[in-house]
Amino acid sequence: MKPLKPRLESIFPAWRWLQHYHGGKFKADLLAALIVIAMLVPQGMAYAIVAGLPPITGLYASVLPMIIYAMIGGSPTLSIGPVALISMMTFATLNPLFEVGSPVYIQAACLLAVMVGVISLLLGIFKFGFLIRLISHPVIKSFIIASAVLIALSQVRLLIDVPLKIDNLSVFLLSFWQYLPYIHVEPLIMGSIGMLFLIFVPRLLRSPWLSPYISASYSAFIIKALPLLMIFLALAVMQRFNLQDYGIKTVGDIPSGFPPINMPFWSWDLVMQLLPGALMIAMVSFVESISIAQATAFQNRSALNSNQELVALGLANLSAGLSSSFPVTGSLSRTVVNADAGARTPMAGVISSIFIVIVSLYFTGVFRELPLAILAATIMVSIWKLVDFKPFIQTWRYSKADGIAMWVTFFGVLFIDISTGLIIGIVSTFVLLLWRISRPHIAVIGLIEGTQHFRNIHRHQVMTRPEIVSVRIDESLTFLNINSLNEFIISEISQNTELKHVILNCSSVSNIDLSALEMLEDINTELHNIGVRLHFSEVKGPVMDRLNQSQLILQLHGQVFLTHYQAVNALQHDLDHYIHI
Amino acid sequence: MKPLKPRLESIFPAWRWLQHYHGGKFKADLLAALIVIAMLVPQGMAYAIVAGLPPITGLYASVLPMIIYAMIGGSPTLSIGPVALISMMTFATLNPLFEVGSPVYIQAACLLAVMVGVISLLLGIFKFGFLIRLISHPVIKSFIIASAVLIALSQVRLLIDVPLKIDNLSVFLLSFWQYLPYIHVEPLIMGSIGMLFLIFVPRLLRSPWLSPYISASYSAFIIKALPLLMIFLALAVMQRFNLQDYGIKTVGDIPSGFPPINMPFWSWDLVMQLLPGALMIAMVSFVESISIAQATAFQNRSALNSNQELVALGLANLSAGLSSSFPVTGSLSRTVVNADAGARTPMAGVISSIFIVIVSLYFTGVFRELPLAILAATIMVSIWKLVDFKPFIQTWRYSKADGIAMWVTFFGVLFIDISTGLIIGIVSTFVLLLWRISRPHIAVIGLIEGTQHFRNIHRHQVMTRPEIVSVRIDESLTFLNINSLNEFIISEISQNTELKHVILNCSSVSNIDLSALEMLEDINTELHNIGVRLHFSEVKGPVMDRLNQSQLILQLHGQVFLTHYQAVNALQHDLDHYIHI
Repeated sequence: MKPLKPRLESIFPAWRWLQHYHGGKFKADLLAALIVIAMLVPQGMAYAIVAGLPPITGLYASVLPMIIYAMIGGSPTLSIGPVALISMMTFATLNPLFEVGSPVYIQAACLLAVMVGVISLLLGIFKFGFLIRLISHPVIKSFIIASAVLIALSQVRLLIDVPLKIDNLSVFLLSFWQYLPYIHVEPLIMGSIGMLFLIFVPRLLRSPWLSPYISASYSAFIIKALPLLMIFLALAVMQRFNLQDYGIKTVGDIPSGFPPINMPFWSWDLVMQLLPGALMIAMVSFVESISIAQATAFQNRSALNSNQELVALGLANLSAGLSSSFPVTGSLSRTVVNADAGARTPMAGVISSIFIVIVSLYFTGVFRELPLAILAATIMVSIWKLVDFKPFIQTWRYSKADGIAMWVTFFGVLFIDISTGLIIGIVSTFVLLLWRISRPHIAVIGLIEGTQHFRNIHRHQVMTRPEIVSVRIDESLTFLNINSLNEFIISEISQNTELKHVILNCSSVSNIDLSALEMLEDINTELHNIGVRLHFSEVKGPVMDRLNQSQLILQLHGQVFLTHYQAVNALQHDLDHYIHI
Repeated sequence: MKPLKPRLESIFPAWRWLQHYHGGKFKADLLAALIVIAMLVPQGMAYAIVAGLPPITGLYASVLPMIIYAMIGGSPTLSIGPVALISMMTFATLNPLFEVGSPVYIQAACLLAVMVGVISLLLGIFKFGFLIRLISHPVIKSFIIASAVLIALSQVRLLIDVPLKIDNLSVFLLSFWQYLPYIHVEPLIMGSIGMLFLIFVPRLLRSPWLSPYISASYSAFIIKALPLLMIFLALAVMQRFNLQDYGIKTVGDIPSGFPPINMPFWSWDLVMQLLPGALMIAMVSFVESISIAQATAFQNRSALNSNQELVALGLANLSAGLSSSFPVTGSLSRTVVNADAGARTPMAGVISSIFIVIVSLYFTGVFRELPLAILAATIMVSIWKLVDFKPFIQTWRYSKADGIAMWVTFFGVLFIDISTGLIIGIVSTFVLLLWRISRPHIAVIGLIEGTQHFRNIHRHQVMTRPEIVSVRIDESLTFLNINSLNEFIISEISQNTELKHVILNCSSVSNIDLSALEMLEDINTELHNIGVRLHFSEVKGPVMDRLNQSQLILQLHGQVFLTHYQAVNALQHDLDHYIHI
């Protein structure tokens, strides 16, 4: 039984930092919280719209989850809340089942968050954190890029104010073609101006001829607050010119108040319908959150327990669902800003969430006249930065298999749907891995002069002699590749009539499965029949343990040598002896 | 362009043996054909019944396929024709779609053979012979054993003369329970006597006190002809005692004549319905046929081209389908008998098929009174020999992963169905392989005194020094396992404060994928930050080719050494130098 304090700290990490909290830390956290809030208010509303939900739910999504993660999570700077990718997956899950924005749709979004929470919680409790390893970097990169394209496309709907379908790229294009005659120009103009504002004002602020007048840190703050600034500008413009009369759709009335806490309506039928989506969202939100937390963990030199993170993420999502909101995860942009702004402890997150409560209590009326096209503009500009094709080219150059997996994921997400694309991508990495294993690299090796080291005869200057062939197979021996070894040995035999000994260098063999063992027995017998002896060298401990239980060791017409050098020496000595007598 | 003769021989291997054919060979082939025919007649009829088809189709199935394989196939002794396993799979494919034995069922069986033929042919032409490697030995062994159980159970239907369902074991047991009050005792008694006859007469013939009177080769021939002998005995008993009056079902009228040659009725709908079954049958028949042919190829020292075999098997099945029959493959029992009986060339198969034509032209009337229970007895006795649980125990002892795959296949076949069971078994081997790759063996290694060889410090007496840790990971570095290496290095760092150098021995690393590369870059940076240098040794040629294109090589704060011995020597020299100044 551990003493109480460490146990408490491991279940409830907040205990550690709360003990040493003081005014200096609070000031730093307060400043970081203010900067984060300037991003969080427009992002929250915008990502709620991406998810097909009322903007207020995006504010709700930042309250309880942030407080809960601050208490239980392992990263001091991770900012949890609504995120574009997860909102898009929420939309993709609910869109085929219910009418977007209807009461049942909103209830289902809450239930989805509860389910994501429960799934993450269970995975964390039963220590399934290792599951994250199933997704390779190229697949997750490609998934994020392709989803960013879909998210950007989904906002076109608000820019031109027609009900485009966005199940996938081909559906989008078809629907775009159909609605082309009905597009509204007014929101498009407004949104376009907004996008230009968000693209060019930062360039202006960073330009060299402004730097004497504004300090770099000050202009960096303005850039972060720019979306919020633009929102206020847009509100002013709307009111001054009565633009609502021109048919520009706005956010409309937002109910003020605390996030309503209640269990969303559920039934087993509904749970079953949402389950595949919930599983995918749980997996992706975990991958997102842990990779962001890991990046900051390097900076903080703090170890991160992936199971603890799953528990924290699970409780955060559970609280999101119970407080009338939708699935959440760690946000990369806000976490980076939070850390850069000097957040010292998770208290920064708690302060942010208190501000959000104040906003939702007293300032929701402010956003009534906010044009949806302006929110769409903030999403498109922020999300388009993720769309980058350099990783595709770099990956393809390094490894064709990883490159193929990336393109498979990309086209899967764009042309089928977001979840299926991810699954196809993951499965493709497995298939490509098995494919590689089934085509092992096999080399004939020889001694490098002056060493006891053996290398590929085609790449290095080595010594060999015709009676002995040393074969190295660069893969564990399994049913997938044992035939290749068989064929390789047969071709060596047919090319070399002087051959007396085949030494199999097992330095790369970490496992010999039963199919391979049986084939090795056959090879051994067959070689024996034509007067050639089979030997093994450098068999690893775990493999030898197993071989010792097999028939092969008893049948072996050669020997097992500790090192390849010893094997060749002993056999050479043998051959020389034989020649001399 | 190759000269004509070798090209002709490669397409049409019969050319080779036909040129050197003479009377001596013919005599040997004729004798072998006679012995095979004694097995083939009862087996053909019995396996047709297993497939749910009229007995005559089993005779048809032995005519054209045998002649075609003799012309094109690569094995001189392989006996192609109806086989219990493939018949069972045919039944499992057609049973859910049509009423067993109805005209549409019989037509569909022909179509199935045509489809299996076309699939095999295409796979052979496009050189997909390597696909056979996807099935591991334990899975195919287990599949054969479990199918044997199902085949034996399917014959219970004929023994007790009730229409039992045999989709899988649980359906069988339920159906057996339901029909228990309606079983017929007469065929059960007859079948049981038949089984006892087939089990105990061979024991009698092999017993030591009979050996003075009967030569071993003569008694061996009798044992092979025993099923045919029993059939004639049963026919005699039936006629002498008018047993048909007791309600014992018999084979009934068999139309005599050549196998009717025609294209079976087909439609795209039907083809689509049969496709999954046809694919499975094509795969299994290929696996069966090639492993039998390979076993005899060892004896004949002749290389076997798996793509050529696929073409031969494809044309054999095509001919089976076009001659009113069902899918065929190589039969283990008949091939062994054929080889033992001294068959010299594929002419033995041609002669057998001529005999079968004679039987189906003139002697079908003979079998009219043959009780179905007697045929069931021959199947049950021959198939029950395959049901052997020793392989399960041996496999489990050697390798838990292979053992799990065996049991998964076994229960899949018995409790779901024959095709699903095989697929689950194959998939389980892939999952278990990936599972093993994701949990690599990682060892700290040290120098074995007197050699330049490094081994696991926990298994061998080795030399190390605290400033240098040598790590060997026994697996290619991929997204599945790179985290394990990361965790291993972190734990080594935390345990050893004197550490200055980490050398990663890459002798077992045959590939580094992009996820692993990125993680290695992170590890390198992280180690550099705490004053530890990362080195690589014994990187293989293909891996080095790739690393040379990556950022890692440029960022590396250590070096890449050809051998581990050189690496340790150089770093030790460095450390000693540092201490002395």
